[in-house]
Amino acid sequence: MSKKNEFTPYYAVIFTSTRTEGDNEYSKMADRMVELASQQDGFISLDSAREEIGITVSYWRNLESIKKWKANSEHKIAQQKGKSNWYKNYTVRIARVENEYSF
Amino acid sequence: MSKKNEFTPYYAVIFTSTRTEGDNEYSKMADRMVELASQQDGFISLDSAREEIGITVSYWRNLESIKKWKANSEHKIAQQKGKSNWYKNYTVRIARVENEYSF
Repeated sequence: MSKKNEFTPYYAVIFTSTRTEGDNEYSKMADRMVELASQQDGFISLDSAREEIGITVSYWRNLESIKKWKANSEHKIAQQKGKSNWYKNYTVRIARVENEYSF
Repeated sequence: MSKKNEFTPYYAVIFTSTRTEGDNEYSKMADRMVELASQQDGFISLDSAREEIGITVSYWRNLESIKKWKANSEHKIAQQKGKSNWYKNYTVRIARVENEYSF
């Protein structure tokens, strides 16, 4: 059972992070950022899970839409609070999805 | 605070899955696959987290090493059991990492 995504190639933003202790309004912000991201031009979908580390992968039609999302004013405030309050460390990777299959 | 990865461009395998009920020796296999993957030529690193869905992202120096890992005989048995026992569904995406930055 396999289906090809009609959009390939498209782009993934792989965000891997380690949190600080306590919520500090993180959950509220995280929910809001998912809501806001999904309203942006070029957004395709988003997957997220957290255990020892958190992994959020968002998918976008092109690099331009990722660039605009990064520069979004509400998102920029969240990015700043991420550095000052919420994350011990994080890594962002921008990747071009070239192949996809599902079971 | 930002560091560029010396390997870019490199490749990511983004594996997103939903599990069936019960362990059914899944955890043991998952640990073994991480161990085995990390011994393969071209392997860079691996991140994994599971909540409602599981996300495992493994990083590789090139497509050839990903192809070889997919064809690894012990891995192939795990892939078959994945379809028959462990996963309700999964998606595999192969992506070329073009940019990376850390905080």
